[in-house]
Amino acid sequence: MTLLLVDLLGVMVFAVSGALAALRKEMDLLGVLVIAAVTALGGGTVRDLLLDRHPVIWVTEPLYIYAALGAAILTVVYTRFRKAPDSALSIADALGLGFFVISGARITLELGYGGVIVVLMGTTTGVVGGVIRDILSARVPLILRKGELYATTAIAGVTFYLVLLGLGVAEGVAAGVGMATVVGLRLVAIIWKVGLPVIPLRR
Amino acid sequence: MTLLLVDLLGVMVFAVSGALAALRKEMDLLGVLVIAAVTALGGGTVRDLLLDRHPVIWVTEPLYIYAALGAAILTVVYTRFRKAPDSALSIADALGLGFFVISGARITLELGYGGVIVVLMGTTTGVVGGVIRDILSARVPLILRKGELYATTAIAGVTFYLVLLGLGVAEGVAAGVGMATVVGLRLVAIIWKVGLPVIPLRR
Amino acid sequence: MTLLLVDLLGVMVFAVSGALAALRKEMDLLGVLVIAAVTALGGGTVRDLLLDRHPVIWVTEPLYIYAALGAAILTVVYTRFRKAPDSALSIADALGLGFFVISGARITLELGYGGVIVVLMGTTTGVVGGVIRDILSARVPLILRKGELYATTAIAGVTFYLVLLGLGVAEGVAAGVGMATVVGLRLVAIIWKVGLPVIPLRR
Repeated sequence: MTLLLVDLLGVMVFAVSGALAALRKEMDLLGVLVIAAVTALGGGTVRDLLLDRHPVIWVTEPLYIYAALGAAILTVVYTRFRKAPDSALSIADALGLGFFVISGARITLELGYGGVIVVLMGTTTGVVGGVIRDILSARVPLILRKGELYATTAIAGVTFYLVLLGLGVAEGVAAGVGMATVVGLRLVAIIWKVGLPVIPLRR
Repeated sequence: MTLLLVDLLGVMVFAVSGALAALRKEMDLLGVLVIAAVTALGGGTVRDLLLDRHPVIWVTEPLYIYAALGAAILTVVYTRFRKAPDSALSIADALGLGFFVISGARITLELGYGGVIVVLMGTTTGVVGGVIRDILSARVPLILRKGELYATTAIAGVTFYLVLLGLGVAEGVAAGVGMATVVGLRLVAIIWKVGLPVIPLRR
Repeated sequence: MTLLLVDLLGVMVFAVSGALAALRKEMDLLGVLVIAAVTALGGGTVRDLLLDRHPVIWVTEPLYIYAALGAAILTVVYTRFRKAPDSALSIADALGLGFFVISGARITLELGYGGVIVVLMGTTTGVVGGVIRDILSARVPLILRKGELYATTAIAGVTFYLVLLGLGVAEGVAAGVGMATVVGLRLVAIIWKVGLPVIPLRR
């Protein structure tokens, strides 16, 4: 799978998740498009700013903007005719996380950075759009809720991807396994409410 | 009207809106100045970061900072002696939006970008300061409230400005009409509570 | 004291304050690390982005990341065995503010900027990490609470530091006095609940 394609898939599923969150808040049509675009493009934008990678991706490649808006409009149209399943937002979010975490890690690797920075930038690419979506739509950020394994899955996925690369596995295979790791762990966390332990604070 | 003047007017009215929001939250004097400055300078700063336009505008031109602080101090002094009308915050915000949206669009055009990017950067310049103001002072961002036509007016104003330029209208005239479009639509939305339709989500 | 050491101390105490805030919200282990890292690295990151100082500090120098994570892990371990005093968060925050405000001011001076920009960047370095921590953990940002003298102490500390430099005082001494000013004023504000006057808004 090419980098552009993976990235555009990430943009589209995150745009769907942003549109669904905005529709639940009963925002008007343009509010829905704005939240969808910010969710879809926020993570990559912050990654590009932190890495001084200019112009920012959607400034050079407006296809990103059209993909986000197109996916948001399809979501609006779909929800006029069919009820979106309750789990749709979580699933779109899990897929977007998987695509973005690995595409962010790949871009950082290509710029010549190593270990810790690759993990952090992959995670940033994956989680920042959703954090902005949640802050703007006044929800507690998913990343911070108990038992969500959110950043954890991102970190695990990138680490696994880097380990596979280190073992000489083909890049495309390592990327695919990394993505599957992120999406799989998120779905497990959502379905069985698995989470990391919470450390009780002595009072 | 020159670009600098329009931009400084935007800075001052947004600083007034930030100061009024902070005073309503009973912040102390310096909190008021901080919120006023962030509201006034936030949109242009984010635009400059996204476009890699360095140094950021108020770093080269501290006049921006003094204009924001001066307007905030005048607002504090004024509200000691006179009651600010309930609508003062909304009106200052509408004017700031009009000035900033068009000045952001002009700056982006001058850098050689086209259509979609100009609309997005004009909108970003206009709305981001207010979003930060609302998040910091713990209000639901204006841009997301129902029936506010907020981003809509920004997008409409920039689009109208670009269409007029495309038709060969003089730049100053196009800019003036664009600003009037933004401010006029915002005031109509505020006064008559006009808004875009909300799409009901099937449940 | 060298710049690096002061900066790393700032990173560590802010990481402690972030970890304590996250533990109070009963986040899971990785949520605690994420909030600690964002609190510790957020202010310097935003300063570097605003000043176009690339690569961002922790991208070149991963020691910053390890310092933040190490301090967070120690905090987690400590709170398993001992109750952290109620005031621990405030004190860690005050120390971090003092270290970061002066290190941010120094870095900005070294880049050749003067007065107002140095004050603003010192303040930004000091307060932004804490603001992000508070927004992410859904607390009203400390900087905006009444009677906290938060940004005020930062501005006073940098101003004092600049005045001492102007009077020909050795840089290390001026930096030490600037830091002591910030930390001292914050502790006074916390202990005696001293604050700037709130301007009542006429209604």
